[in-house]
Amino acid sequence: MPTWAPARPASPASSFSGWKPAAAYHAAANLAASGVLAVLAEAGALWSAAGLGNASLQPLLPLTRGALDTAAARGLPGAVSGPVARGDTGVLARHLDAMHAAGLPDDLLRALALRQLALAETAGRLDAAQTSALRALLV
Amino acid sequence: MPTWAPARPASPASSFSGWKPAAAYHAAANLAASGVLAVLAEAGALWSAAGLGNASLQPLLPLTRGALDTAAARGLPGAVSGPVARGDTGVLARHLDAMHAAGLPDDLLRALALRQLALAETAGRLDAAQTSALRALLV
Repeated sequence: MPTWAPARPASPASSFSGWKPAAAYHAAANLAASGVLAVLAEAGALWSAAGLGNASLQPLLPLTRGALDTAAARGLPGAVSGPVARGDTGVLARHLDAMHAAGLPDDLLRALALRQLALAETAGRLDAAQTSALRALLV
Repeated sequence: MPTWAPARPASPASSFSGWKPAAAYHAAANLAASGVLAVLAEAGALWSAAGLGNASLQPLLPLTRGALDTAAARGLPGAVSGPVARGDTGVLARHLDAMHAAGLPDDLLRALALRQLALAETAGRLDAAQTSALRALLV
């Protein structure tokens, strides 16, 4: 058992029907590792399709590592930046346009933006009008 | 201009209709930073909903940092692990079940798994039957 695996809890969590902690923590671990790499692949594909150079990790990794350090210090809601966290629908629309112009599907960007929206709401960073406007672009 | 910003290329990339490198690199940078944090939020939500403890970053961050180190050394296709990279449809189905049992939507997990599938194909790690079976679960 890897060192990050939790002790088996004494009873099922009431919010979790069908107690399958092994599948849940394996899925969570896979999101945290290879799921993150999938996001970097998408960022690299956008970088490359936009003519900004090869789909190299090199310009992207420092951004990711910096975001992780900020999240470790402040927590995720306080660490999210960018148009969703600022309530900037114009820039978010331009990001979606950039995906389309690069010939990339926008399902991943939308799914990620919805989670960023939830984090920004948790942090109390958006008013109701901003939340509604962002959500209208995303769903 | 941040230090990671590329020099403005002399001419538009032919694959990119409507030359908007600023939007493209801002979107790529946002994916690499806050997009990654959104994945960690999802992993934490699954962790918590499964009764494995609070949605803490602490058990997840070492997994993410380890995956980034592996990707820096080997490239993304060689660094992806988990059921998609192994062609294991049974485990992938259990990961999707774990999301559903936790009351979480599966759009993000599916979007990430499709990119992991593309990386595994790039690395030549899957045969045609594995690719078809995984894709059938995901789209």
